[in-house]
Amino acid sequence: MASIRAAIVGGTGYTGVELVRLLLGHPEVSLQAVTSRGEAGIALSAFFPGLAGFTDLVFSEPDVGQLAENDVVFFATPSGVAMRMAPALLERGVRVIDLSADFRLRDAGEWAQWYGEEHVCPEWLGRTVYGLPEVYRGRLPDAQLVANPGCYPTAVQLGFLPLLSSGVVALSDLLADAKSGVSGAGRNQRQDLSFCEATESVRAYGASGHRHWPEINQGLRDAAGRADVVLTFVPHLMPMIRGIHATLYATLQKTDEDVQVLFEQFFSDEPFVDVMPAGSHPETRSVRGANTCRIAVHRATGSGRVVVLSVVDNLVKGAAGQAVQNMNLMFGCAETAGLQSIPPTP
Amino acid sequence: MASIRAAIVGGTGYTGVELVRLLLGHPEVSLQAVTSRGEAGIALSAFFPGLAGFTDLVFSEPDVGQLAENDVVFFATPSGVAMRMAPALLERGVRVIDLSADFRLRDAGEWAQWYGEEHVCPEWLGRTVYGLPEVYRGRLPDAQLVANPGCYPTAVQLGFLPLLSSGVVALSDLLADAKSGVSGAGRNQRQDLSFCEATESVRAYGASGHRHWPEINQGLRDAAGRADVVLTFVPHLMPMIRGIHATLYATLQKTDEDVQVLFEQFFSDEPFVDVMPAGSHPETRSVRGANTCRIAVHRATGSGRVVVLSVVDNLVKGAAGQAVQNMNLMFGCAETAGLQSIPPTP
Amino acid sequence: MASIRAAIVGGTGYTGVELVRLLLGHPEVSLQAVTSRGEAGIALSAFFPGLAGFTDLVFSEPDVGQLAENDVVFFATPSGVAMRMAPALLERGVRVIDLSADFRLRDAGEWAQWYGEEHVCPEWLGRTVYGLPEVYRGRLPDAQLVANPGCYPTAVQLGFLPLLSSGVVALSDLLADAKSGVSGAGRNQRQDLSFCEATESVRAYGASGHRHWPEINQGLRDAAGRADVVLTFVPHLMPMIRGIHATLYATLQKTDEDVQVLFEQFFSDEPFVDVMPAGSHPETRSVRGANTCRIAVHRATGSGRVVVLSVVDNLVKGAAGQAVQNMNLMFGCAETAGLQSIPPTP
Amino acid sequence: MASIRAAIVGGTGYTGVELVRLLLGHPEVSLQAVTSRGEAGIALSAFFPGLAGFTDLVFSEPDVGQLAENDVVFFATPSGVAMRMAPALLERGVRVIDLSADFRLRDAGEWAQWYGEEHVCPEWLGRTVYGLPEVYRGRLPDAQLVANPGCYPTAVQLGFLPLLSSGVVALSDLLADAKSGVSGAGRNQRQDLSFCEATESVRAYGASGHRHWPEINQGLRDAAGRADVVLTFVPHLMPMIRGIHATLYATLQKTDEDVQVLFEQFFSDEPFVDVMPAGSHPETRSVRGANTCRIAVHRATGSGRVVVLSVVDNLVKGAAGQAVQNMNLMFGCAETAGLQSIPPTP
Repeated sequence: MASIRAAIVGGTGYTGVELVRLLLGHPEVSLQAVTSRGEAGIALSAFFPGLAGFTDLVFSEPDVGQLAENDVVFFATPSGVAMRMAPALLERGVRVIDLSADFRLRDAGEWAQWYGEEHVCPEWLGRTVYGLPEVYRGRLPDAQLVANPGCYPTAVQLGFLPLLSSGVVALSDLLADAKSGVSGAGRNQRQDLSFCEATESVRAYGASGHRHWPEINQGLRDAAGRADVVLTFVPHLMPMIRGIHATLYATLQKTDEDVQVLFEQFFSDEPFVDVMPAGSHPETRSVRGANTCRIAVHRATGSGRVVVLSVVDNLVKGAAGQAVQNMNLMFGCAETAGLQSIPPTP
Repeated sequence: MASIRAAIVGGTGYTGVELVRLLLGHPEVSLQAVTSRGEAGIALSAFFPGLAGFTDLVFSEPDVGQLAENDVVFFATPSGVAMRMAPALLERGVRVIDLSADFRLRDAGEWAQWYGEEHVCPEWLGRTVYGLPEVYRGRLPDAQLVANPGCYPTAVQLGFLPLLSSGVVALSDLLADAKSGVSGAGRNQRQDLSFCEATESVRAYGASGHRHWPEINQGLRDAAGRADVVLTFVPHLMPMIRGIHATLYATLQKTDEDVQVLFEQFFSDEPFVDVMPAGSHPETRSVRGANTCRIAVHRATGSGRVVVLSVVDNLVKGAAGQAVQNMNLMFGCAETAGLQSIPPTP
Repeated sequence: MASIRAAIVGGTGYTGVELVRLLLGHPEVSLQAVTSRGEAGIALSAFFPGLAGFTDLVFSEPDVGQLAENDVVFFATPSGVAMRMAPALLERGVRVIDLSADFRLRDAGEWAQWYGEEHVCPEWLGRTVYGLPEVYRGRLPDAQLVANPGCYPTAVQLGFLPLLSSGVVALSDLLADAKSGVSGAGRNQRQDLSFCEATESVRAYGASGHRHWPEINQGLRDAAGRADVVLTFVPHLMPMIRGIHATLYATLQKTDEDVQVLFEQFFSDEPFVDVMPAGSHPETRSVRGANTCRIAVHRATGSGRVVVLSVVDNLVKGAAGQAVQNMNLMFGCAETAGLQSIPPTP
Repeated sequence: MASIRAAIVGGTGYTGVELVRLLLGHPEVSLQAVTSRGEAGIALSAFFPGLAGFTDLVFSEPDVGQLAENDVVFFATPSGVAMRMAPALLERGVRVIDLSADFRLRDAGEWAQWYGEEHVCPEWLGRTVYGLPEVYRGRLPDAQLVANPGCYPTAVQLGFLPLLSSGVVALSDLLADAKSGVSGAGRNQRQDLSFCEATESVRAYGASGHRHWPEINQGLRDAAGRADVVLTFVPHLMPMIRGIHATLYATLQKTDEDVQVLFEQFFSDEPFVDVMPAGSHPETRSVRGANTCRIAVHRATGSGRVVVLSVVDNLVKGAAGQAVQNMNLMFGCAETAGLQSIPPTP
């Protein structure tokens, strides 16, 4: 027990602190270090009062030598950090799970276009495993570098996967209307994320283009096994802390397809995907704090279009929980280890 | 001034009380009566504490004779009430604005199918004016019976109108993903609408069919001037009190169409439709308490699909405010009379 | 009509924009200018999207010459600004209503102690009228400089006034436990005021000392006509946008005092104070957007202590609305002019 | 492991489902049955979607014979149920933890006065252990019947305990101003607890008398070892799901008392009470989902009164978590078993 030595680079964001929460409760992990340039020397429990009584860890400066003493290092950093720091660790044999976007796109040119700078570590892109276990589970035991998916990409890809893998829908008009809680925007002091301006309001953002679009697109192309996927993706900000609700639309090529059965069979062995009974409408609160993705499938009146409702907690299955799931598979732990907490009601 | 005598049938719901708020502040209206079978004899200000100090009205039993002494009677009742009570008033020459769904569909058979009982007053369906002033303004001065649109239908139709009227989009794949605040579900003691279960959560509902679908469909067919409109409509419940955000998707037939200009020109004379600058994302809070519909238009990455973002306050432009706008047009008042309050920030 | 020329110095905060909202709707005011050093040249409606369609005003640089062309200038600035800028306007005969704290304390030494710098304009402190109309109505018509009360001080003083003025309670153990919505902290990019960190949580702040304590204390001493008032005051932050709920505790000197009658009589002529029926518990939402203070009085089980529940909208009766009420009294308008909007339900 | 057989009577309320959540995650408990007359035959996971994937239990009819096969039975029922059903179980040797109010007051007459009916089982009142482990830990190993404290009484008693036990404050003017999230009112379909009416509002309730007052009073008398305690208690409803913030006021008899040290020493060995550093203000979110009570102590400006800020999660330390803590002590488990989950941030 407690045999995996782990460290987190960048522990002051919401993804980082969620990872702290999950790793402290993981039976086989010993959390050695959490770094922060800005808060080095400060106790985690002083920075995040909810941790008081649960850990004595103190934020430390990121130091490659010390980080290299771990079995696994998680990056919970803004984009651009991991691609600069991870190579030194990878070269020393440390396994890395990057929760940022640095290694999610296989194409360095596309990455540069969406993230506004050149990729400084393109040589690792081809050796990265995209950490969506429902697709790449088999490659994780040998992975040294895992790119943990984004929150929207997780909810959207899981909802589209059965349809694209089985080839039952047209690829030319896939549509994902996604709704996210405010924590998806990170721990930022932005006026539009203030309580007074985010409460009691809903809005879209990035309607003309969002960084998660190329990531989702890449995954859907893989699932379809074809490049001619056409995806429309519009994200929205909801007045809640956690949760993503992706509403997915596709046109069936055979109108009598039984999509309920398709989904149930596709995910029958998945520990973290719950295909709900026909007629259900998943609520984001039903996965709060949990690593579960709940999915329901409908056929729309009038158009007959298939409508997939897919919900995750953006910080758990959409970030830190999925990272732990990836770690479990990389290190041979039970896939659900440390991930069994039940969503609170209410 | 104060020359229009008005009454409200059914004043204990959210639509009813919002109508009370607006009519009490209307310079040309004298609110004579607000009825409620269940609360007759109770002061409105005892039932709705926010009204204390603003009105001495007491809920009264609905009485056709007394109601007939008014110039206009608003129905803010559950479906099935207006179609039974309104005819007696209409026969006496009273003008009626029905905020329920009873007269919204022209086809009595379709109404019966969605509302679960026969329509008892089909003879009035053909004489009803559908109260979306942006389309039917010219017919309102002579209207005796106005069917006030539903909240979703208002936001969705206004957003699609310029596209359908001008014929620039394909009719075969219109899609409306709509998000509503909880007040859209009315003043009901339902567990799923309780604070503890509606807060911090998002979910779809009626994904396989919702009563507003036929109403929207009817309006879009009128706008297109054709029957072969195919609409997918999925509503969602958001953790906020007021507001609807409709995200609308359509495929342009000419990809170089300048939709921004199209929208700006289409609504250039509308007092209650604000086409925002290119690149904008309207927030529902920017129309809270106001009769405004704010719209922005985008083109989606990858698909090039046109994305319309349309927001209203479901209780104002989506219900009581639009009813007052209709009344203004019916009685020759300024269209904006009583509807000029500014949304509060924050 | 529209005969009062008004300007606002500092229009980018919540108090400022609320003042814009109220003055634009005031029948006798013409809003000439709203200043902001940081946003000069930007349209108000671009900065606050809810204003789009309601005003064409553009933020301007504060200029004493231009400001002096107005009948009244409102300061909605951080502390320290008005005491530097107002004198030049006052000397030119402009009337000033300061919504900041600069002129609220009569004692310059006490001001310096709580606000961390010397008062640069002590000569005006003695000529300032404290703008709580329920106490100082008679002095407002002749006032040139009005110090608009803070939000907490408004709710707390109104609730204690009848008790202190009549001398029925002990002065030695007055206690105010106050709860405020987040907008009371202003329009600031603070992490602890972010949606994710202010939602779903309650906390006290300033439990060992808050700047509103000396202001309240000064008012209570005036009301009691004695200096030996001992007040405990603890403010709390609530997860809501607007509203203050002050819960006030005092010990009656005669236990058979009929406090309900005392309150009803004391406020019987006040247009903006609503003493609720015995047994009531005012909700902050019942005054949202309105200039009303609602008050209920109870006797506590066990102790017999009198408990006063006093609610206001911190941005209206607690700030901008009260400023307009003061302006009305200064300029001889109806006291309620521009202040008659009804709180929305829900 | 899993050696304690447990059942819950009344599993459809928030206290019941929270107990389900905690007991399913407890390493030494096997949850055998959850009863509900109304929902018998329904899967828990159908009733509470968050439980899907975590349990196959089905609500059963309450049956004394079957319940008696357990080591411990929890009552999470409305008042009046446990006093009728528990005796039959107690007589068969089953240990009972009652989360309702039936056995909390030692005086049957006082119980009848506050709960509106005669107590039908007064003979057990004297044999009940009041389940506040910080006071009665020593009596729990031998307890057969435990009365689990109410949520307000837990937060208030823990905050006052060090002051009363040490005799440093006057007993004549204790005051508790308490703020609770909406889940404290239970899972009820009440209009005033609906999302639309509880959001964006704060109000007091029971200002003239609340059922938790006699319970708190009894506990404070025990702590002081005297009967002449005078307590004022006013509860408030906050727009959040979970959490209680009790703000406690007392007058020190010696003004130079170091209350920070007093609190730190008093609770130094308590696993679930966190005395925060001087100057802190606990947030309710810092204990969300956790069995922790966080406390900070201040001295108020002006009055010098001691102000204690005490926060708990009303459903955990204020209900189900404390019940599990009691069970742990009754059955010789580690006191923290099953209670180590970390509050999520954010």
